[in-house]
Amino acid sequence: MTARPAPDTRARGRFITVEGGEGAGKSTLVERLVGALGERGIRAVATREPGGSAGAEEIRALLLGGATERWDPVAETLLLMAARRDHLRRTVWPAIAAGRWVVCDRYADSTRAYQGAGKGVDPAFIEHVQRSVDEGRAPDLTLVLDLPAALGRARARARRGKDDAAGDRFEALESSFHERLHSAFRAIAEAEPGRCAVLDATAPPDDLLAAALRAIGDRLPLPLRPA
Amino acid sequence: MTARPAPDTRARGRFITVEGGEGAGKSTLVERLVGALGERGIRAVATREPGGSAGAEEIRALLLGGATERWDPVAETLLLMAARRDHLRRTVWPAIAAGRWVVCDRYADSTRAYQGAGKGVDPAFIEHVQRSVDEGRAPDLTLVLDLPAALGRARARARRGKDDAAGDRFEALESSFHERLHSAFRAIAEAEPGRCAVLDATAPPDDLLAAALRAIGDRLPLPLRPA
Repeated sequence: MTARPAPDTRARGRFITVEGGEGAGKSTLVERLVGALGERGIRAVATREPGGSAGAEEIRALLLGGATERWDPVAETLLLMAARRDHLRRTVWPAIAAGRWVVCDRYADSTRAYQGAGKGVDPAFIEHVQRSVDEGRAPDLTLVLDLPAALGRARARARRGKDDAAGDRFEALESSFHERLHSAFRAIAEAEPGRCAVLDATAPPDDLLAAALRAIGDRLPLPLRPA
Repeated sequence: MTARPAPDTRARGRFITVEGGEGAGKSTLVERLVGALGERGIRAVATREPGGSAGAEEIRALLLGGATERWDPVAETLLLMAARRDHLRRTVWPAIAAGRWVVCDRYADSTRAYQGAGKGVDPAFIEHVQRSVDEGRAPDLTLVLDLPAALGRARARARRGKDDAAGDRFEALESSFHERLHSAFRAIAEAEPGRCAVLDATAPPDDLLAAALRAIGDRLPLPLRPA
């Protein structure tokens, strides 16, 4: 009998999603996490939703272009889910199968919070479609960036002013909507403590990164830094 | 007590869909039906899927542009459903509410046949999403144009040659696929005889129009031609 090679626990990558409301620092954290994982010998890629693949970025342009109420919440949810399907099949799953870790700026919890809690789309409908889209493969870990809604909106406004950008359509929505979002993200994290870690997004960026790395180390098998 | 006006049975329009495989003559029949209904005093509009509203036409461009296997069947189904939602809300329902009849070239049965029977998307998933998209409002009548698959493909090929068009991506698919479609459309019509009427699409166009008008007269309250 020939010896078989020992199973390589690093063969499969991990899928980490970063969630939270506007101005919580998701994009910055995603980029810094990919760098910090790389320093630890983990090949990681940054991606985002909606988008992250050629087709999904085209759907993103349909979602974010034009008037704010261009799509009703059901059509918007279906477009987000179509983009997610393409993103998973073209980007996320191939990367994970190749042993890379994927760190994604927004994922399914944003649909649950924005379209579900925020805009009244039936949560059972969202879950049903999500199961067909992800084939039952949830993220290995979700980092929920927790920030009081008013502070997040102030940060997002400052960023838009600085960039002189037209602004994300989601960010144009009203205050009570952002409060519902904030509650929804907290509720999701409380309902799935095994998948979700809540991080204090009022912390300085270095502290937020350190907290994210601790959460990853606590829950996922972080390989040792190569010699 | 003041007298109330008698209910106007013509106040609400009707929703008629025309279904079938490639080359069955759907587009021609839709245009001729709208004309023939107009001659009978019925204001009718022609529309199509995917498309029929500004947003849905943009989604159509995503669906029909690019490589044949650009979208996997689940993403394709979600894009079709998003387009359908926009089409219903922006075009079909407002027209019906205004008293117009809507005659639509392809609708939900094409999703059941192409993505379900043809490409293996779970029929329960299609029905679940369809119910959220149409809010339980099925067409008043569906005309299923029945044509042997080989004849439909020959017609579609001849039309593409004549128009020098690149061709619809659906029409590039193989023969066994078209046979599954043909069986699926027949099965849908058999399962819902109250909604569906099967018409012989090998008949000359004038005879097909006459048969369609008979099916409409048999099942829907065709108003009298105005004096």
